[in-house]
Amino acid sequence: MDLSPWIEKLRNGDPRALARALSEVEDRGPRAEALLRQLFPHSGKSWRLGVTGAPGAGKSSLVNRLAAHLRGEKKSVAILAVDPTSPFSGGSILGDRIRMQSHHADPGVFIRSMATRGALGGLAPTTIDAMVVLEASGHDVVIVETVGVGQAEVDVVRLAGIVSVVVTPGMGDDVQALKAGVLEIADVLVLNKADQPGADRTQQQLEAMLSTAHNGHPPPIVRTVATEDQGIGEWLAALRSKERPENAAAAYWREKLLAMLGQRLLEKIVGEVLTEEQLSEAANEVANRRRNPYDFIAEVVAKAGLS
Amino acid sequence: MDLSPWIEKLRNGDPRALARALSEVEDRGPRAEALLRQLFPHSGKSWRLGVTGAPGAGKSSLVNRLAAHLRGEKKSVAILAVDPTSPFSGGSILGDRIRMQSHHADPGVFIRSMATRGALGGLAPTTIDAMVVLEASGHDVVIVETVGVGQAEVDVVRLAGIVSVVVTPGMGDDVQALKAGVLEIADVLVLNKADQPGADRTQQQLEAMLSTAHNGHPPPIVRTVATEDQGIGEWLAALRSKERPENAAAAYWREKLLAMLGQRLLEKIVGEVLTEEQLSEAANEVANRRRNPYDFIAEVVAKAGLS
Repeated sequence: MDLSPWIEKLRNGDPRALARALSEVEDRGPRAEALLRQLFPHSGKSWRLGVTGAPGAGKSSLVNRLAAHLRGEKKSVAILAVDPTSPFSGGSILGDRIRMQSHHADPGVFIRSMATRGALGGLAPTTIDAMVVLEASGHDVVIVETVGVGQAEVDVVRLAGIVSVVVTPGMGDDVQALKAGVLEIADVLVLNKADQPGADRTQQQLEAMLSTAHNGHPPPIVRTVATEDQGIGEWLAALRSKERPENAAAAYWREKLLAMLGQRLLEKIVGEVLTEEQLSEAANEVANRRRNPYDFIAEVVAKAGLS
Repeated sequence: MDLSPWIEKLRNGDPRALARALSEVEDRGPRAEALLRQLFPHSGKSWRLGVTGAPGAGKSSLVNRLAAHLRGEKKSVAILAVDPTSPFSGGSILGDRIRMQSHHADPGVFIRSMATRGALGGLAPTTIDAMVVLEASGHDVVIVETVGVGQAEVDVVRLAGIVSVVVTPGMGDDVQALKAGVLEIADVLVLNKADQPGADRTQQQLEAMLSTAHNGHPPPIVRTVATEDQGIGEWLAALRSKERPENAAAAYWREKLLAMLGQRLLEKIVGEVLTEEQLSEAANEVANRRRNPYDFIAEVVAKAGLS
């Protein structure tokens, strides 16, 4: 099948062609791989931003405001809202509808929600593919936003070039908990709801925590009130002051190639070397302690000719 | 090398033998696999509990209190605190020290922190292995506790048999955000800090959300104040009222076998079929759009003889 007409429409920013391509990729449809191969050379030109933070921190409002500011500069914006905890994309539909209202008359903003929990536990590959599609569609800015503060979320926003971590006043112990893993990846910290009590104290805590991090170059802390459109210009300026070190893209792709490879290997093995039935039977036997999982894995690897 | 003396000590509850085995498994040392093969048949007898929830919800205090109650019944308890976001186990050392203080005179409580972020992105395998070791050491109860509320955390606590999700009053939107993925796995909901304002309202919100979930059998909500040792007995009773359906262990092991297999396949490919240098070179080329990642993956899979 000739994909050229589809790809041409997509590259010209046709939202329906784009939405169809994202669905094809998300569902791992029959044309997904051919599509991705042809789109990949056109990716890599968008300004990529990642936004993460604890639930309730106001990420969606912030991202909507940021998109509006970028639209004011005539930039086209695509927003990918990723929920790595849910196997159901449908779970985010309501959120999409609410968000669409503020941008729905504007063809320059494309919003898509995505759940990335795959049957084989593969998280990153689908998100990588969706990014390739969105970048190839020629949007000036692609913003990836995630729910949650765990490893999967960190992996997702690291897909983006410049990462903002959103925190709110009065997080207290939560700030300590954020320390592990999440603050390390922040290029910019956004202290949202900065008009609420405790904002100064949270900022001081953050500054203290960050003073020893990032090799003496702590990320800037920007105070915002998303609901009042306050601080968004400052946030944008902080993002623009950040540039990824030259080897970041290679390091990024090293990890992504591994994730894609792991996913593909599992897909190959389960179905070809190991049937679903054999897997279920082995799981049953291991559960009853009649089989040793470490022996089983070694057997499968040997059967695949890899031992 | 004969591992029998080590294994015998470990099975007799020697904390040093246990700590050494956990380190061996965590570092993927040379004796890890042989150790795990021999320990596996002795696992599966402990009562396994998982505790998760947002940062700052008081999970550690709750788990400490639960351990104290179980000690009152002369049960031995092992606590595995997993941080899936951090590549550095050291990050949790301070937390360990603080927690050890309340139990350090008691050989019946073993506490271990673990960071599970592996170089190849493997999360679950190390935790599965650590659980096998802890169970084989003969502890009556093994409690797995995680920081964070994302997919990795969900995966970790699902390792345990019975899952508690900890929430606090006034979470507001956060409760909505929890909905996706995290509440679904709760066998028991713990509303901690239940003496704070908004507890009744949060409970009502939770009840409303849960009324349609779990096929009309919503999980119980237990109100606790960990700092005051309130509600812990009720929590324990709620946990004891829960039993995993018969096929849960098989479903659990089906997923774990896949995770272990994915990890092992990557380890085999990177180093044997694909050198680290080739991987780095490919990443560089992909980053510069001189190579197509989809072609590269297909090539590696073919080279491994799997296409």
